[in-house]
Amino acid sequence: MASDYSSLREECLAANLALPQTGLVDLTFGNVSVADPAHRVFAIKPSGVSYDKLGAGDIVVLDFDGNILSGSFRPSSDTPTHRYLYRHFEGIRAVVHTHSRNAVAFAQAGLDIPCLGTTHCDYFHGPVPVTRAMTPQEIGGEYEWETGQVIVERFTRAGLNPLEVPAVLVRNHGPFAWGSSGAKAVETALALEIVADMASKTLALNPRATPAPQALLDKHFFRKHGANAYYGQPAA
Amino acid sequence: MASDYSSLREECLAANLALPQTGLVDLTFGNVSVADPAHRVFAIKPSGVSYDKLGAGDIVVLDFDGNILSGSFRPSSDTPTHRYLYRHFEGIRAVVHTHSRNAVAFAQAGLDIPCLGTTHCDYFHGPVPVTRAMTPQEIGGEYEWETGQVIVERFTRAGLNPLEVPAVLVRNHGPFAWGSSGAKAVETALALEIVADMASKTLALNPRATPAPQALLDKHFFRKHGANAYYGQPAA
Amino acid sequence: MASDYSSLREECLAANLALPQTGLVDLTFGNVSVADPAHRVFAIKPSGVSYDKLGAGDIVVLDFDGNILSGSFRPSSDTPTHRYLYRHFEGIRAVVHTHSRNAVAFAQAGLDIPCLGTTHCDYFHGPVPVTRAMTPQEIGGEYEWETGQVIVERFTRAGLNPLEVPAVLVRNHGPFAWGSSGAKAVETALALEIVADMASKTLALNPRATPAPQALLDKHFFRKHGANAYYGQPAA
Amino acid sequence: MASDYSSLREECLAANLALPQTGLVDLTFGNVSVADPAHRVFAIKPSGVSYDKLGAGDIVVLDFDGNILSGSFRPSSDTPTHRYLYRHFEGIRAVVHTHSRNAVAFAQAGLDIPCLGTTHCDYFHGPVPVTRAMTPQEIGGEYEWETGQVIVERFTRAGLNPLEVPAVLVRNHGPFAWGSSGAKAVETALALEIVADMASKTLALNPRATPAPQALLDKHFFRKHGANAYYGQPAA
Repeated sequence: MASDYSSLREECLAANLALPQTGLVDLTFGNVSVADPAHRVFAIKPSGVSYDKLGAGDIVVLDFDGNILSGSFRPSSDTPTHRYLYRHFEGIRAVVHTHSRNAVAFAQAGLDIPCLGTTHCDYFHGPVPVTRAMTPQEIGGEYEWETGQVIVERFTRAGLNPLEVPAVLVRNHGPFAWGSSGAKAVETALALEIVADMASKTLALNPRATPAPQALLDKHFFRKHGANAYYGQPAA
Repeated sequence: MASDYSSLREECLAANLALPQTGLVDLTFGNVSVADPAHRVFAIKPSGVSYDKLGAGDIVVLDFDGNILSGSFRPSSDTPTHRYLYRHFEGIRAVVHTHSRNAVAFAQAGLDIPCLGTTHCDYFHGPVPVTRAMTPQEIGGEYEWETGQVIVERFTRAGLNPLEVPAVLVRNHGPFAWGSSGAKAVETALALEIVADMASKTLALNPRATPAPQALLDKHFFRKHGANAYYGQPAA
Repeated sequence: MASDYSSLREECLAANLALPQTGLVDLTFGNVSVADPAHRVFAIKPSGVSYDKLGAGDIVVLDFDGNILSGSFRPSSDTPTHRYLYRHFEGIRAVVHTHSRNAVAFAQAGLDIPCLGTTHCDYFHGPVPVTRAMTPQEIGGEYEWETGQVIVERFTRAGLNPLEVPAVLVRNHGPFAWGSSGAKAVETALALEIVADMASKTLALNPRATPAPQALLDKHFFRKHGANAYYGQPAA
Repeated sequence: MASDYSSLREECLAANLALPQTGLVDLTFGNVSVADPAHRVFAIKPSGVSYDKLGAGDIVVLDFDGNILSGSFRPSSDTPTHRYLYRHFEGIRAVVHTHSRNAVAFAQAGLDIPCLGTTHCDYFHGPVPVTRAMTPQEIGGEYEWETGQVIVERFTRAGLNPLEVPAVLVRNHGPFAWGSSGAKAVETALALEIVADMASKTLALNPRATPAPQALLDKHFFRKHGANAYYGQPAA
């Protein structure tokens, strides 16, 4: 890695600029970080800066202990949440946070997004979980760090694999999604919003709609992921 | 037909490029095939290729037995479903698959789209049916081929004419639509999404909304289709 | 009036081209006519022609008895409905028909659009009514003419003034709106769709939402219409 | 301040032109005013003029007693409401009125927008209140002035601070929002519509969704507002 982290900054900038193109972002809600786990560093959007003014030089680089390595702006206020996820979810390389409206609706309703069909199965191997409410102590303390803690707690207690369920809903807040690259994490955040919209529409039509059968969930997820994937073109 | 299937490829490319223009397509969900039934061949989109990179030379041509006749890419993973439909629904020349959100909502809810008004009647002579759930055996076997089988089963058991009801909802999955050309099948897929949206909105206002009277269904469908059609301009 | 009805054609063309700009039109659903009541003639869109190919020369001109005076295309299949309205609703100069989705939802639900707030009151002095279901005899007979008949019947029986309630929902079909010019009728069709959307959202939040008080209805309607209007700028 | 109020006009024009960019405005519903409280004057959009024709010279300037100081057009019919707010809500510098659809839905439903999550908390320190129904006497009298009176009454009786809850829903009508500048008031009007949309979607999924905990509300609001804010970049 170059000493100025230029490729990490560039990937992070590209993903942050791709985010508003998806239609997921209202106002300035939303940020993407991209990590180099081997070197325990990550790049993230500065706080409260408009997307249309963002350049690679504005991206802030930190290590996994929270020290700023490069960048003159204050990093996103959600930085400690990203950092917590990188420290605990082995194998993820990028994290996206949005306030996309249908995912927020499930987060505010306190409901997991059920897996009702193949669009969902293509991205998430099971329901997308919602976290428990945070305590006043957690909120009044290191709030953004504690947000990461409740996410990881949710996965650990349910035995969920973050590589098979690459998103979460923080209760009364909104979604975080992750992936193997900035572009992939943004794609997953978009897929999350789409399946949340589809699930809302489905439940409005039929409040007793049943989840997709386990065989269908396995078929679609593993058609696209893992050693036996056959969707798309073979790797070159 | 030219030996390189160029007109079939071109019609298939044009229809695949028209599909994202309709707003029906999120991410890369969606594909169109176009057939030459007399020669028992069809052209289809390659798997997992972005619409903005698609050229006529990327389109894959297969025969009705599934042999690839032309094209270096792997065809859409849904190819066996398209192939099953061409083999069993006489008179169709193009098939479209999307994950359009309102049609998916009915597929996930396990509900036919009821025929509530003239917009629906203009395209579909009756409700758009949803298939039964597939069995673990069907899903674990030749899944995409079996998907075609449950579609045809649904039409056969209910005595539906695929030329009068040119679409179906695959349960926990999404819609397939078809028509006499690539352009017409894309138009039908769009009409399907529109009537699904209208039906959802109607049922939200009045869960006991009643179907359009049979006379109105017949009037509107046959005003546009068949020997006594009088909508539009006379054929030149 | 020029013998070729050029100003009527131009106003009709402009209104038909404005219609898809509003977002009210899916596919080719929708048409506008503009009348010269003093001469008992009106201009209307040809049937099934795409908006992007429409020119003033394609507009069809008919008299109030249904005779084609000018134009080589077949007029919109809804022409007899427009003609019926011009013959019975004194003072209207233009008619718009769309399948706009939220207005269709009320038409399919068989429900009037209640007047729940000032946006509605600004355009419609009371609920927008839905017609009764048409009989098989009416549908099997001169269907489009009978459609006009059930609209006028709805207004006559309820003592509604078409100049104060310039729109209707045809049951299991969709909206017609009218006004003093092509542009005004298109604006009213758009306002209708907006208030239908607002009313759906309101009823989803509170199924027992009550209509705007009569005083508010009168205040807003007559603030914009009639001798005591004070909204906008004084006429030059 | 220049004697022609040019900077006030320019800020008012910019905010009025920004308003339709947000997607909040249908037809010509919507207006923004900007005040100079020290001089007890404000600038406002003229009534019923299209956004695409608006120039700085068309903006009307009035004093807090309602006298027109500059401008040849009639001011927005809602001017007395704006004026009432400037006279009673100390510290606000701009007021925006829209008929944005989801906020209108709450106003028509007669419901406060509950604070269900952090998107809401970031802008509003508690629910956005709806006013009581106006009496026939208030509607028949100085209607727009009385509209301001019921807004202020709503805040006074509930002990709400307009700087911490910078918006209101006028029952059976729609939202007003305000802020420290024209741009900030427009941003708040947009945030209001977003949180109304999210709240509607949430309540559709779970009618018993509970408000965000008080600790979360305080954390998010004061993370962005007041002496201890740490969101965004430090002031230069």
